[in-house]
Amino acid sequence: MQTFNFSPGPAMLPPEVIEQIKNDLPEWKWKGVPQGASVMEVSHRGKAFEELIDEAEQDLRDLLGIPSNYRVLFMQGGAWGQFACVPMNLLRANERAGYIVSGGWSKSAAEEGSKFGEVSILASSEDALFNLVPKLNYDVIENNKKNHKGDNSQGNSGTSYYYICSNETVYGNEVHTLPSKLDAPLVVDASSHFLSRRIDVASCGLIYAGAQKNVGPAGVTIVIVRDDLLDRAPKAIPAVWHYAHMAKHKSLFNTPPVFSIYVTALTLKWIKAQGGLPEMERRAIARSSMLYDALDGSKLFKAPVLIEDRSRMNVVFDSPSVEIDAAFVKFCEARGLMSLRGHRVRGGMRASLYNAMPVSGVEALLSAVREFEASHA
Amino acid sequence: MQTFNFSPGPAMLPPEVIEQIKNDLPEWKWKGVPQGASVMEVSHRGKAFEELIDEAEQDLRDLLGIPSNYRVLFMQGGAWGQFACVPMNLLRANERAGYIVSGGWSKSAAEEGSKFGEVSILASSEDALFNLVPKLNYDVIENNKKNHKGDNSQGNSGTSYYYICSNETVYGNEVHTLPSKLDAPLVVDASSHFLSRRIDVASCGLIYAGAQKNVGPAGVTIVIVRDDLLDRAPKAIPAVWHYAHMAKHKSLFNTPPVFSIYVTALTLKWIKAQGGLPEMERRAIARSSMLYDALDGSKLFKAPVLIEDRSRMNVVFDSPSVEIDAAFVKFCEARGLMSLRGHRVRGGMRASLYNAMPVSGVEALLSAVREFEASHA
Repeated sequence: MQTFNFSPGPAMLPPEVIEQIKNDLPEWKWKGVPQGASVMEVSHRGKAFEELIDEAEQDLRDLLGIPSNYRVLFMQGGAWGQFACVPMNLLRANERAGYIVSGGWSKSAAEEGSKFGEVSILASSEDALFNLVPKLNYDVIENNKKNHKGDNSQGNSGTSYYYICSNETVYGNEVHTLPSKLDAPLVVDASSHFLSRRIDVASCGLIYAGAQKNVGPAGVTIVIVRDDLLDRAPKAIPAVWHYAHMAKHKSLFNTPPVFSIYVTALTLKWIKAQGGLPEMERRAIARSSMLYDALDGSKLFKAPVLIEDRSRMNVVFDSPSVEIDAAFVKFCEARGLMSLRGHRVRGGMRASLYNAMPVSGVEALLSAVREFEASHA
Repeated sequence: MQTFNFSPGPAMLPPEVIEQIKNDLPEWKWKGVPQGASVMEVSHRGKAFEELIDEAEQDLRDLLGIPSNYRVLFMQGGAWGQFACVPMNLLRANERAGYIVSGGWSKSAAEEGSKFGEVSILASSEDALFNLVPKLNYDVIENNKKNHKGDNSQGNSGTSYYYICSNETVYGNEVHTLPSKLDAPLVVDASSHFLSRRIDVASCGLIYAGAQKNVGPAGVTIVIVRDDLLDRAPKAIPAVWHYAHMAKHKSLFNTPPVFSIYVTALTLKWIKAQGGLPEMERRAIARSSMLYDALDGSKLFKAPVLIEDRSRMNVVFDSPSVEIDAAFVKFCEARGLMSLRGHRVRGGMRASLYNAMPVSGVEALLSAVREFEASHA
């Protein structure tokens, strides 16, 4: 039986990438040249790995069109690490950070951020059960500025950065247009839709993403940060979380998560070979539209997220009861459609349709939806 | 040509472990049961991975005889992460931490630690070029106590913890007997000799080790910490670096480095199957003695570390000149003996003889030493 893995992350990798990993065991072949050991056993300061990480950076730059005044870092600690790392590096004393809360992840980011300085929630859709992306009220921002008690000389607005999670994995909403007209850098947690669409890097100060959704296995976090933000960090923060320090050492200050970076490098080459982000975006729209259309036409299931804010990556839906939810998840598992249970804090169902999910996987899910519905009508 | 990898880390893994990884692609078999995807693609909250991480912990407990009042954590960030994490969690305000500096790693740990509180260097062998482990002068500790200006009520000595690196990867010294008679918990960076010998866990407050020497690939750090130290951490430290928080969630608070933990789990089973730590220790003594004996009998090469402080894992040696060093490294590479160049800050040669290094690798190196010497006499 062919299985399809709808896991929210760690998630499906392209079969070609898995095949390459297998071919590179027991001996890693870099550009076809055997390296005398597997990629897990070679020095991260050897020529082959340094070339690999340089190429991975260049491939990422090509895919996203990253301007030259941005640095690319490969870090550890995942999104939760960045929840602390961002304010440690960017939140100035006597200033605040403005968070837009569209789900569990940005809510946690704001809570974690408040350990390191003043955090202000500028907008939240929690009252709407995170079934939409909260709209940023620019009057609120202006008002915040007026009330700022810090240094207002030199046009200082009192805000160190704005923060948004551009795709909410748990609740299934996605920011399709990033906020503009901001007076401070925008920090974007793009973890769960990274490289599934084009984004205007130049409109952001910092973008980060854990690899384990669209780009690789767990264990590495990609950070894209504008040069001028590197200087902000105070010296007394952990060296491994100091953006400027990591940038200076090209992510090889300490031993990096070698294998995770290697798989990420393979996946970046796969995305390029498939046609890059325009093609990933076309596929993401095709996959998610098929499923949302079926759910909107369903008498049993319902996709609760506001149409214009729906995620192309994480399609969240519900049946009328938790019992039917559980029965449907079980029904799907018996057909090889795995990990469709919703997040433990939300319940319901969630189909994660990342870059590596083929259309045939969505078709198999649609068949399951129709058959299950017919038997429960 | 058979190659042997003397890399200081990331280092050799047992061939049986590499073979198992290959067999588990494209589909992970947990206890022989196919999981529908590779280990990189399954949920860390699924039953199989939770069983795997539980077994890894139990195997580690069995191997080291870890008492029940110690917790085992699988973290990210490597030793440099712990350089910050340890003082963030354990260094109390108005107290100091006492560091024993036996090489580059403990020196860096002390420098990093001083970002987060008062650090005192109790002993250092830097003047002796780190060719020995500095002996701890207990009078210095007593004197430190008397000068302590903090809270002396309730027998508070003013020291939050003592810190030692029990095997110095760069300079090749090893602590064969841990300091005793201490009045505060001992923190041990055991990264580069972890699981190569028995240690008395109960004599330490905290032991940590990056996996990429003896236990697995880069990307995961094992922390063994005594229960009563978990309560010390202030709330306002990063959640992913909060020992109590990670312990409460059994290392699954956020997405862990799944693949690195999986390989570590396989390696722990391998160590057990080989005969556990008594056997690892026997092999380590056999390998390193063969090489030190040859070097001590050599007219060309010299092992500079004090005999009683020599590392069984990282054998450091020099020829009379940097030119001969370079020629020897090249000579070895042509024979498949890889990564023998010393650390960039020290120079010379270094043969890292971790658990996965077979005796035949050391024999091949001895032949190279003899032949090179004969041609350079």
